[in-house]
Amino acid sequence: MLETISTNRAHGGTQSVYRHASTATGSEMTFSVYVPPHQPGQKLPVVWFLSGLSCTHANVTEKGEFRAACAALGLIFVAPDTSPRGESVPDDPAGAYDFGLSAGFYVDATEPPFARQYRMWTYVTEELPALIFAHFPADPAMQSIMGHSMGGHGALTIGLTFPERFRAISAFAPIVAPSQVPWGEKALGGYLGGDRETWRRHDAVALIEDGARAEAILVDQGLADPFLEQQLRPELLEAACASAGITLTLTRRPHYDHSYYFISTFMTDHLRWHAKRLDKSLNAAPA
Amino acid sequence: MLETISTNRAHGGTQSVYRHASTATGSEMTFSVYVPPHQPGQKLPVVWFLSGLSCTHANVTEKGEFRAACAALGLIFVAPDTSPRGESVPDDPAGAYDFGLSAGFYVDATEPPFARQYRMWTYVTEELPALIFAHFPADPAMQSIMGHSMGGHGALTIGLTFPERFRAISAFAPIVAPSQVPWGEKALGGYLGGDRETWRRHDAVALIEDGARAEAILVDQGLADPFLEQQLRPELLEAACASAGITLTLTRRPHYDHSYYFISTFMTDHLRWHAKRLDKSLNAAPA
Repeated sequence: MLETISTNRAHGGTQSVYRHASTATGSEMTFSVYVPPHQPGQKLPVVWFLSGLSCTHANVTEKGEFRAACAALGLIFVAPDTSPRGESVPDDPAGAYDFGLSAGFYVDATEPPFARQYRMWTYVTEELPALIFAHFPADPAMQSIMGHSMGGHGALTIGLTFPERFRAISAFAPIVAPSQVPWGEKALGGYLGGDRETWRRHDAVALIEDGARAEAILVDQGLADPFLEQQLRPELLEAACASAGITLTLTRRPHYDHSYYFISTFMTDHLRWHAKRLDKSLNAAPA
Repeated sequence: MLETISTNRAHGGTQSVYRHASTATGSEMTFSVYVPPHQPGQKLPVVWFLSGLSCTHANVTEKGEFRAACAALGLIFVAPDTSPRGESVPDDPAGAYDFGLSAGFYVDATEPPFARQYRMWTYVTEELPALIFAHFPADPAMQSIMGHSMGGHGALTIGLTFPERFRAISAFAPIVAPSQVPWGEKALGGYLGGDRETWRRHDAVALIEDGARAEAILVDQGLADPFLEQQLRPELLEAACASAGITLTLTRRPHYDHSYYFISTFMTDHLRWHAKRLDKSLNAAPA
């Protein structure tokens, strides 16, 4: 069911890459999982990492610098791909990087020809979690979610939609309001059609305006990020959280850009923040 | 003179990639430099990292997980390429991964057609250091060297040849005795010709047998490394160091392989070991 593509000892644990036939997307899907050192029988918290435009599972797996912290904190780290792939999967007609392959935007598309296979919402929130909890020592009661750029959008929208499931939500340079920026208008229009009401479930700012809540959100944003002003617009999330009474820790980082050099710099901080919240849920659970 | 290919803020410092026209190799050469956060005018220790077969500067730059430790310890980290490249540069006739492009073995070739451009010894020990000390806040009195596999061979042979220059030598899964293993016999024979006497300057074990010394050497070796028994043979270095009275800290790591997952796991340990020795030289210097 899960085909092992590679498995490597790293930081005392195991970094593996798997492939499987996905029902949600009607394609083969690839993902990576880091399992930290642990005791036999032990169940561990799991952090979901959603990647950005043009990425696969491999970018964060190779460049994310998350393993040392995950090993120290006892966290499983799961990195899905960003879209369905394969001969059968339609792409952006012009081959653009911001739609189609590598740009699934974590929605279930309703528009042809994308509706049949671009079902990343179902894949990431239902199908892949079932696989993870069936095959790895992961505790479904201790989950958190983070992501980068388009994946930050995914982490925010999924985290806000399932607050009971995710004990922590964080993002690096997220797209916070896709309905209001060019990347998002293209993607949500292309996958969901022209009725902007249907976009609101896939827009973190709109979700908060419509009543979604989270205990706390952590965001880091580089000030040398070339997408900051036109595509990311963290001030919109800041305003929405302020209105809703959501504690947002948004740190603007001078000189940092949109790359994995930025992500890897603050990855340990994010994982510590997640672990603190995952531990709290552990402490609150019955002994 | 130095063309900047990319520059990214990372872990409080700057990770950059440069290209330049090399006199030694008669080609363009690419290398990366990480400069940690530092005070204006401050001169910093510099760690040289030599990469293995099939690698460029990019592998360790992206996957090495060295920046957090270099930032904390105040170390410049330089990663050269592994061979000359370009239209003019001859490759292995069969296109093998273990000779020619990406496999310069850190020697100055004497055999045609390689002698003209495969001059990585001169490049790494003379030309690139001159560039580094001209363009970066690096202190020539505080240098150390490390490498992986073929680059471990390079770090050991260069470190043993210039003990006054390198305050620390370490390696991940190095080729310790190229004269005695297939990779080395092919490379040294192809670049230096059939007279094995000329190989001894490029064989760490032979160098030690011939009188070269180092204060201490640190080596980590994975026991799941597929090249361990035929190509790497750390026991030969162990025996040579024991005979010569060189303190070798060789740690065999169960389950670890030959990949960057192995290197990145122990990178921080190596950098701390280097920093301790680089600091000692700093302390011993006149005030």
